[in-house]
Amino acid sequence: MKLYDSAIAPNPRRVRIFLAEKGIEVPTVQVDLLKREQKSEEFKRKNSLGAIPLLELDDGQCIAESVAICRYLEELHPEPALFGRNALERAHFEMWNRRVELGLGVPVAQVWIHGSPYTAPLVAAEGGAQVPAAAAFNREIIARFFRWFDRELDGHTFIAGEPFSIADISALCMIDFATALVGIAVDPALVNVARWHATVAARPSAQA
Amino acid sequence: MKLYDSAIAPNPRRVRIFLAEKGIEVPTVQVDLLKREQKSEEFKRKNSLGAIPLLELDDGQCIAESVAICRYLEELHPEPALFGRNALERAHFEMWNRRVELGLGVPVAQVWIHGSPYTAPLVAAEGGAQVPAAAAFNREIIARFFRWFDRELDGHTFIAGEPFSIADISALCMIDFATALVGIAVDPALVNVARWHATVAARPSAQA
Repeated sequence: MKLYDSAIAPNPRRVRIFLAEKGIEVPTVQVDLLKREQKSEEFKRKNSLGAIPLLELDDGQCIAESVAICRYLEELHPEPALFGRNALERAHFEMWNRRVELGLGVPVAQVWIHGSPYTAPLVAAEGGAQVPAAAAFNREIIARFFRWFDRELDGHTFIAGEPFSIADISALCMIDFATALVGIAVDPALVNVARWHATVAARPSAQA
Repeated sequence: MKLYDSAIAPNPRRVRIFLAEKGIEVPTVQVDLLKREQKSEEFKRKNSLGAIPLLELDDGQCIAESVAICRYLEELHPEPALFGRNALERAHFEMWNRRVELGLGVPVAQVWIHGSPYTAPLVAAEGGAQVPAAAAFNREIIARFFRWFDRELDGHTFIAGEPFSIADISALCMIDFATALVGIAVDPALVNVARWHATVAARPSAQA
Protein backbone atom coordinates (compact mmCIF):
# COMPACT_ATOMS: atom_id res chain seq x y z
CA MET A 1 0.00 0.00 0.00
CA LYS A 2 1.25 3.49 -0.80
CA LEU A 3 -0.24 6.97 -0.65
CA TYR A 4 0.26 9.52 -3.42
CA ASP A 5 0.62 12.72 -1.46
CA SER A 6 1.56 16.39 -1.63
CA ALA A 7 2.58 18.62 1.24
CA ILE A 8 0.95 21.72 -0.26
CA ALA A 9 -2.63 20.52 -0.89
CA PRO A 10 -5.45 20.37 1.69
CA ASN A 11 -6.99 17.01 0.80
CA PRO A 12 -3.90 14.79 1.21
CA ARG A 13 -3.45 16.41 4.63
CA ARG A 14 -6.85 15.03 5.64
CA VAL A 15 -5.51 11.51 4.99
CA ARG A 16 -2.22 12.23 6.76
CA ILE A 17 -4.02 13.50 9.89
CA PHE A 18 -6.33 10.47 9.75
CA LEU A 19 -3.31 8.15 9.61
CA ALA A 20 -1.66 9.99 12.50
CA GLU A 21 -4.82 9.71 14.65
CA LYS A 22 -4.86 5.97 13.92
CA GLY A 23 -1.15 5.60 14.55
CA ILE A 24 -0.65 4.02 11.13
CA GLU A 25 2.25 4.59 8.79
CA VAL A 26 1.80 4.20 5.06
CA PRO A 27 4.65 4.81 2.59
CA THR A 28 4.06 7.97 0.57
CA VAL A 29 5.00 9.09 -2.94
CA GLN A 30 5.28 12.86 -3.29
CA VAL A 31 3.47 14.16 -6.39
CA ASP A 32 4.77 17.49 -7.69
CA LEU A 33 1.61 19.53 -8.27
CA LEU A 34 3.56 22.52 -9.57
CA LYS A 35 4.95 20.28 -12.33
CA ARG A 36 1.39 18.93 -12.85
CA GLU A 37 2.61 15.36 -12.31
CA GLN A 38 -0.94 14.39 -11.27
CA LYS A 39 -2.07 15.17 -14.83
CA SER A 40 0.50 12.86 -16.48
CA GLU A 41 -0.78 9.94 -18.53
CA GLU A 42 0.93 7.55 -16.14
CA PHE A 43 -0.84 9.00 -13.11
CA LYS A 44 -4.19 9.28 -14.88
CA ARG A 45 -4.10 5.52 -15.43
CA LYS A 46 -4.37 5.31 -11.62
CA ASN A 47 -6.93 8.15 -11.25
CA SER A 48 -8.49 9.39 -14.47
CA LEU A 49 -9.40 12.67 -12.74
CA GLY A 50 -5.70 13.43 -12.28
CA ALA A 51 -6.02 14.27 -8.59
CA ILE A 52 -4.47 13.36 -5.26
CA PRO A 53 -4.61 11.89 -2.67
CA LEU A 54 -4.66 8.38 -4.11
CA LEU A 55 -4.15 5.11 -2.27
CA GLU A 56 -2.60 2.31 -4.34
CA LEU A 57 -2.97 -1.18 -2.94
CA ASP A 58 -0.36 -3.89 -3.31
CA ASP A 59 -2.33 -5.52 -6.15
CA GLY A 60 -2.38 -2.23 -8.07
CA GLN A 61 -6.00 -1.33 -7.32
CA CYS A 62 -6.45 2.34 -6.53
CA ILE A 63 -8.79 4.34 -4.30
CA ALA A 64 -9.20 8.05 -5.02
CA GLU A 65 -10.99 10.73 -2.95
CA SER A 66 -9.70 11.50 0.51
CA VAL A 67 -12.77 10.39 2.47
CA ALA A 68 -13.01 7.12 0.50
CA ILE A 69 -9.36 6.44 1.41
CA CYS A 70 -10.00 7.26 5.07
CA ARG A 71 -13.09 5.05 5.16
CA TYR A 72 -11.07 2.13 3.73
CA LEU A 73 -8.35 2.68 6.34
CA GLU A 74 -11.03 2.79 9.08
CA GLU A 75 -12.15 -0.71 8.05
CA LEU A 76 -8.58 -2.03 8.26
CA HIS A 77 -7.85 -0.19 11.52
CA PRO A 78 -11.15 0.37 13.36
CA GLU A 79 -9.72 2.07 16.49
CA PRO A 80 -10.14 4.91 17.29
CA ALA A 81 -13.36 5.08 15.29
CA LEU A 82 -13.18 8.39 13.42
CA PHE A 83 -16.34 7.65 11.41
CA GLY A 84 -18.41 6.72 14.49
CA ARG A 85 -18.89 3.77 16.86
CA ASN A 86 -22.51 2.82 16.12
CA ALA A 87 -25.13 3.38 13.44
CA LEU A 88 -26.47 6.65 14.81
CA GLU A 89 -23.03 8.08 15.53
CA ARG A 90 -21.85 7.07 12.06
CA ALA A 91 -24.87 8.88 10.58
CA HIS A 92 -24.15 12.01 12.62
CA PHE A 93 -20.45 12.02 11.76
CA GLU A 94 -21.33 11.62 8.08
CA MET A 95 -23.86 14.45 8.41
CA TRP A 96 -21.30 16.74 10.01
CA ASN A 97 -18.57 15.87 7.55
CA ARG A 98 -20.93 16.68 4.67
CA ARG A 99 -22.07 19.94 6.28
CA VAL A 100 -18.42 20.99 6.50
CA GLU A 101 -17.58 19.89 2.98
CA LEU A 102 -20.64 21.39 1.31
CA GLY A 103 -20.99 24.45 3.52
CA LEU A 104 -17.31 25.39 3.75
CA GLY A 105 -15.22 23.28 1.38
CA VAL A 106 -17.30 24.08 -1.70
CA PRO A 107 -17.34 27.90 -1.31
CA VAL A 108 -13.64 27.91 -0.32
CA ALA A 109 -12.91 26.04 -3.56
CA GLN A 110 -14.94 28.63 -5.51
CA VAL A 111 -12.91 31.47 -3.98
CA TRP A 112 -9.72 29.56 -4.74
CA ILE A 113 -10.74 29.01 -8.37
CA HIS A 114 -12.10 32.51 -9.04
CA GLY A 115 -10.07 34.71 -6.75
CA SER A 116 -6.52 33.38 -6.52
CA PRO A 117 -3.51 34.38 -8.62
CA TYR A 118 -2.29 30.78 -8.23
CA THR A 119 -5.25 29.31 -10.09
CA ALA A 120 -5.63 31.99 -12.79
CA PRO A 121 -3.20 30.28 -15.21
CA LEU A 122 -4.79 26.86 -14.53
CA VAL A 123 -8.25 28.21 -15.34
CA ALA A 124 -6.87 29.84 -18.50
CA ALA A 125 -5.18 26.59 -19.52
CA GLU A 126 -8.63 24.95 -19.50
CA GLY A 127 -9.93 27.67 -21.84
CA GLY A 128 -11.79 29.60 -19.14
CA ALA A 129 -11.43 32.84 -17.22
CA GLN A 130 -11.84 33.56 -13.52
CA VAL A 131 -15.08 35.25 -12.43
CA PRO A 132 -14.06 37.64 -9.62
CA ALA A 133 -17.71 38.29 -8.68
CA ALA A 134 -18.07 34.57 -7.96
CA ALA A 135 -15.18 34.80 -5.49
CA ALA A 136 -16.84 37.75 -3.75
CA PHE A 137 -20.20 35.94 -3.67
CA ASN A 138 -18.64 32.89 -2.03
CA ARG A 139 -16.74 34.97 0.54
CA GLU A 140 -20.14 36.05 1.83
CA ILE A 141 -21.33 32.43 1.96
CA ILE A 142 -18.21 31.51 3.95
CA ALA A 143 -18.75 34.38 6.41
CA ARG A 144 -22.35 33.18 6.92
CA PHE A 145 -21.14 29.58 7.37
CA PHE A 146 -18.73 30.62 10.11
CA ARG A 147 -21.46 32.50 12.02
CA TRP A 148 -23.65 29.37 11.90
CA PHE A 149 -20.67 27.14 12.74
CA ASP A 150 -19.86 29.25 15.81
CA ARG A 151 -23.38 28.80 17.17
CA GLU A 152 -23.23 25.04 16.55
CA LEU A 153 -19.88 24.71 18.33
CA ASP A 154 -21.21 26.38 21.48
CA GLY A 155 -20.78 23.81 24.26
CA HIS A 156 -19.21 21.23 21.89
CA THR A 157 -15.59 20.19 22.26
CA PHE A 158 -15.59 18.72 18.75
CA ILE A 159 -17.85 19.30 15.77
CA ALA A 160 -20.09 16.30 16.36
CA GLY A 161 -19.82 16.70 20.15
CA GLU A 162 -17.61 13.84 21.32
CA PRO A 163 -15.38 12.19 20.22
CA PHE A 164 -13.03 13.77 17.67
CA SER A 165 -14.12 12.72 14.18
CA ILE A 166 -13.49 12.86 10.45
CA ALA A 167 -15.56 16.08 10.42
CA ASP A 168 -12.98 17.80 12.63
CA ILE A 169 -10.22 16.67 10.29
CA SER A 170 -12.08 18.00 7.23
CA ALA A 171 -12.85 21.34 8.85
CA LEU A 172 -9.31 21.84 10.17
CA CYS A 173 -7.76 21.19 6.75
CA MET A 174 -10.23 23.43 4.94
CA ILE A 175 -9.86 26.31 7.38
CA ASP A 176 -6.07 26.12 7.41
CA PHE A 177 -6.02 26.03 3.59
CA ALA A 178 -8.49 28.94 3.40
CA THR A 179 -6.51 31.12 5.77
CA ALA A 180 -3.02 30.21 4.52
CA LEU A 181 -3.58 30.13 0.75
CA VAL A 182 -6.98 31.55 -0.17
CA GLY A 183 -6.83 34.80 1.81
CA ILE A 184 -9.87 34.06 3.96
CA ALA A 185 -9.87 35.29 7.56
CA VAL A 186 -12.03 33.91 10.36
CA ASP A 187 -13.61 36.67 12.45
CA PRO A 188 -11.87 36.42 15.87
CA ALA A 189 -15.17 37.41 17.54
CA LEU A 190 -16.38 33.87 16.75
CA VAL A 191 -15.02 32.56 20.03
CA ASN A 192 -16.34 29.01 19.67
CA VAL A 193 -14.66 28.59 16.29
CA ALA A 194 -11.41 29.99 17.74
CA ARG A 195 -11.56 27.66 20.77
CA TRP A 196 -12.41 24.61 18.62
CA HIS A 197 -9.60 25.43 16.16
CA ALA A 198 -7.06 25.84 18.97
CA THR A 199 -8.15 22.46 20.41
CA VAL A 200 -7.83 20.47 17.18
CA ALA A 201 -4.72 22.29 15.97
CA ALA A 202 -2.99 21.36 19.25
CA ARG A 203 -3.41 17.62 18.64
CA PRO A 204 -0.15 16.02 17.51
CA SER A 205 -1.90 14.73 14.35
CA ALA A 206 -2.34 18.33 13.12
CA GLN A 207 1.40 18.41 12.37
CA ALA A 208 0.94 15.69 9.75
CA MET B 1 -39.22 7.26 12.20
CA LYS B 2 -40.40 9.80 9.63
CA LEU B 3 -38.85 11.46 6.60
CA TYR B 4 -39.28 15.16 5.90
CA ASP B 5 -39.59 15.19 2.15
CA SER B 6 -40.46 17.30 -0.89
CA ALA B 7 -41.48 16.06 -4.31
CA ILE B 8 -39.77 18.94 -6.15
CA ALA B 9 -36.22 18.77 -4.76
CA PRO B 10 -33.43 16.45 -5.96
CA ASN B 11 -31.94 15.41 -2.61
CA PRO B 12 -35.07 13.95 -0.98
CA ARG B 13 -35.53 11.91 -4.17
CA ARG B 14 -32.17 10.26 -3.48
CA VAL B 15 -33.56 8.99 -0.18
CA ARG B 16 -36.86 7.92 -1.76
CA ILE B 17 -35.06 5.90 -4.47
CA PHE B 18 -32.81 4.38 -1.81
CA LEU B 19 -35.86 3.32 0.22
CA ALA B 20 -37.52 1.87 -2.90
CA GLU B 21 -34.40 -0.15 -3.75
CA LYS B 22 -34.39 -1.51 -0.19
CA GLY B 23 -38.12 -2.19 -0.24
CA ILE B 24 -38.61 -0.11 2.91
CA GLU B 25 -41.48 2.24 3.61
CA VAL B 26 -41.00 5.20 5.94
CA PRO B 27 -43.80 7.67 6.70
CA THR B 28 -43.15 11.04 5.09
CA VAL B 29 -44.03 14.61 5.96
CA GLN B 30 -44.22 16.91 2.95
CA VAL B 31 -42.37 20.19 3.48
CA ASP B 32 -43.60 23.08 1.31
CA LEU B 33 -40.40 24.58 -0.07
CA LEU B 34 -42.28 27.30 -1.96
CA LYS B 35 -43.67 28.49 1.37
CA ARG B 36 -40.12 28.14 2.86
CA GLU B 37 -41.43 25.84 5.59
CA GLN B 38 -37.92 24.38 5.92
CA LYS B 39 -36.74 27.79 7.14
CA SER B 40 -39.32 28.04 9.95
CA GLU B 41 -38.07 28.21 13.52
CA GLU B 42 -39.86 24.96 14.27
CA PHE B 43 -38.09 23.10 11.45
CA LYS B 44 -34.73 24.69 12.20
CA ARG B 45 -34.86 23.19 15.67
CA LYS B 46 -34.64 19.83 13.85
CA ASN B 47 -32.05 20.96 11.28
CA SER B 48 -30.42 24.32 11.92
CA LEU B 49 -29.47 24.55 8.24
CA GLY B 50 -33.16 24.63 7.31
CA ALA B 51 -32.86 21.95 4.63
CA ILE B 52 -34.46 18.68 3.65
CA PRO B 53 -34.39 15.70 3.54
CA LEU B 54 -34.39 15.07 7.27
CA LEU B 55 -34.97 11.79 9.08
CA GLU B 56 -36.55 12.10 12.53
CA LEU B 57 -36.25 9.05 14.77
CA ASP B 58 -38.91 7.99 17.25
CA ASP B 59 -36.94 9.49 20.14
CA GLY B 60 -36.79 12.86 18.36
CA GLN B 61 -33.18 12.64 17.25
CA CYS B 62 -32.67 13.90 13.70
CA ILE B 63 -30.33 13.01 10.86
CA ALA B 64 -29.83 15.58 8.09
CA GLU B 65 -28.00 15.20 4.74
CA SER B 66 -29.32 12.71 2.24
CA VAL B 67 -26.28 10.40 2.18
CA ALA B 68 -26.11 10.34 6.00
CA ILE B 69 -29.76 9.27 6.07
CA CYS B 70 -29.15 6.58 3.45
CA ARG B 71 -26.12 5.29 5.31
CA TYR B 72 -28.16 4.99 8.50
CA LEU B 73 -30.91 3.11 6.65
CA GLU B 74 -28.26 0.80 5.14
CA GLU B 75 -27.18 -0.19 8.66
CA LEU B 76 -30.77 -1.01 9.64
CA HIS B 77 -31.50 -2.79 6.34
CA PRO B 78 -28.22 -4.11 4.93
CA GLU B 79 -29.63 -5.84 1.84
CA PRO B 80 -29.18 -5.04 -1.01
CA ALA B 81 -25.93 -3.31 -0.07
CA LEU B 82 -26.03 0.03 -1.91
CA PHE B 83 -22.85 1.30 -0.18
CA GLY B 84 -20.85 -1.85 -1.00
CA ARG B 85 -20.46 -5.43 0.24
CA ASN B 86 -16.85 -5.38 1.49
CA ALA B 87 -14.18 -2.85 2.46
CA LEU B 88 -12.79 -2.33 -1.03
CA GLU B 89 -16.22 -2.11 -2.66
CA ARG B 90 -17.37 0.33 0.03
CA ALA B 91 -14.32 2.47 -0.69
CA HIS B 92 -15.00 2.41 -4.43
CA PHE B 93 -18.69 3.22 -4.04
CA GLU B 94 -17.78 6.11 -1.75
CA MET B 95 -15.19 7.27 -4.31
CA TRP B 96 -17.74 7.18 -7.12
CA ASN B 97 -20.45 8.86 -5.11
CA ARG B 98 -18.06 11.68 -4.26
CA ARG B 99 -16.87 12.00 -7.85
CA VAL B 100 -20.50 12.45 -8.89
CA GLU B 101 -21.33 14.89 -6.11
CA LEU B 102 -18.22 17.04 -6.47
CA GLY B 103 -17.84 16.75 -10.25
CA LEU B 104 -21.50 17.12 -11.20
CA GLY B 105 -23.61 18.07 -8.18
CA VAL B 106 -21.48 21.06 -7.20
CA PRO B 107 -21.38 22.75 -10.64
CA VAL B 108 -25.09 21.99 -11.22
CA ALA B 109 -25.82 23.77 -7.94
CA GLN B 110 -23.72 26.74 -9.10
CA VAL B 111 -25.71 26.99 -12.35
CA TRP B 112 -28.93 26.67 -10.35
CA ILE B 113 -27.87 29.46 -7.95
CA HIS B 114 -26.44 31.84 -10.55
CA GLY B 115 -28.46 31.10 -13.66
CA SER B 116 -32.03 30.25 -12.69
CA PRO B 117 -35.00 32.64 -12.46
CA TYR B 118 -36.29 30.43 -9.63
CA THR B 119 -33.34 31.17 -7.36
CA ALA B 120 -32.88 34.88 -8.21
CA PRO B 121 -35.32 36.09 -5.50
CA LEU B 122 -33.82 33.68 -2.94
CA VAL B 123 -30.32 35.01 -3.63
CA ALA B 124 -31.63 38.57 -3.37
CA ALA B 125 -33.38 37.77 -0.07
CA GLU B 126 -29.96 36.81 1.35
CA GLY B 127 -28.58 40.19 0.27
CA GLY B 128 -26.70 38.87 -2.77
CA ALA B 129 -27.02 38.97 -6.54
CA GLN B 130 -26.64 36.20 -9.09
CA VAL B 131 -23.39 36.08 -11.06
CA PRO B 132 -24.39 35.00 -14.60
CA ALA B 133 -20.74 34.48 -15.59
CA ALA B 134 -20.46 31.89 -12.81
CA ALA B 135 -23.37 29.98 -14.35
CA ALA B 136 -21.68 30.01 -17.76
CA PHE B 137 -18.35 28.93 -16.22
CA ASN B 138 -19.98 25.97 -14.51
CA ARG B 139 -21.88 24.93 -17.63
CA GLU B 140 -18.45 24.33 -19.21
CA ILE B 141 -17.34 22.29 -16.19
CA ILE B 142 -20.49 20.17 -16.48
CA ALA B 143 -19.92 19.58 -20.21
CA ARG B 144 -16.36 18.44 -19.43
CA PHE B 145 -17.63 16.21 -16.63
CA PHE B 146 -20.04 14.47 -19.00
CA ARG B 147 -17.31 13.78 -21.57
CA TRP B 148 -15.18 12.19 -18.81
CA PHE B 149 -18.21 10.34 -17.39
CA ASP B 150 -19.00 8.89 -20.82
CA ARG B 151 -15.50 7.42 -21.11
CA GLU B 152 -15.71 5.98 -17.59
CA LEU B 153 -19.09 4.34 -18.28
CA ASP B 154 -17.76 2.52 -21.36
CA GLY B 155 -18.27 -1.17 -20.63
CA HIS B 156 -19.86 -0.50 -17.22
CA THR B 157 -23.52 -1.29 -16.58
CA PHE B 158 -23.49 0.92 -13.48
CA ILE B 159 -21.20 3.71 -12.37
CA ALA B 160 -19.02 1.59 -10.13
CA GLY B 161 -19.32 -1.42 -12.45
CA GLU B 162 -21.59 -3.89 -10.66
CA PRO B 163 -23.83 -3.78 -8.72
CA PHE B 164 -26.13 -0.75 -8.71
CA SER B 165 -25.03 1.66 -5.96
CA ILE B 166 -25.61 4.91 -4.12
CA ALA B 167 -23.48 6.59 -6.82
CA ASP B 168 -26.07 5.66 -9.48
CA ILE B 169 -28.83 7.12 -7.31
CA SER B 170 -26.90 10.37 -6.81
CA ALA B 171 -26.10 10.75 -10.50
CA LEU B 172 -29.65 9.96 -11.65
CA CYS B 173 -31.16 12.55 -9.31
CA MET B 174 -28.63 15.21 -10.24
CA ILE B 175 -28.97 14.67 -13.97
CA ASP B 176 -32.77 14.62 -13.87
CA PHE B 177 -32.79 17.81 -11.78
CA ALA B 178 -30.25 19.46 -14.12
CA THR B 179 -32.22 18.63 -17.25
CA ALA B 180 -35.71 19.29 -15.83
CA LEU B 181 -35.11 22.44 -13.78
CA VAL B 182 -31.67 23.91 -14.48
CA GLY B 183 -31.78 23.92 -18.28
CA ILE B 184 -28.77 21.67 -18.75
CA ALA B 185 -28.79 19.26 -21.69
CA VAL B 186 -26.68 16.11 -21.97
CA ASP B 187 -25.06 15.76 -25.40
CA PRO B 188 -26.84 12.74 -27.01
CA ALA B 189 -23.56 11.80 -28.72
CA LEU B 190 -22.40 10.59 -25.29
CA VAL B 191 -23.83 7.13 -25.89
CA ASN B 192 -22.58 5.54 -22.69
CA VAL B 193 -24.23 8.23 -20.56
CA ALA B 194 -27.46 7.79 -22.54
CA ARG B 195 -27.39 4.00 -22.16
CA TRP B 196 -26.58 4.19 -18.44
CA HIS B 197 -29.33 6.76 -17.86
CA ALA B 198 -31.90 4.64 -19.70
CA THR B 199 -30.88 1.62 -17.58
CA VAL B 200 -31.20 3.30 -14.21
CA ALA B 201 -34.28 5.36 -15.14
CA ALA B 202 -36.06 2.10 -16.09
CA ARG B 203 -35.70 0.67 -12.59
CA PRO B 204 -38.98 0.83 -10.66
CA SER B 205 -37.21 2.80 -7.90
CA ALA B 206 -36.70 5.72 -10.30
CA GLN B 207 -40.41 6.48 -10.01
CA ALA B 208 -39.97 7.26 -6.32
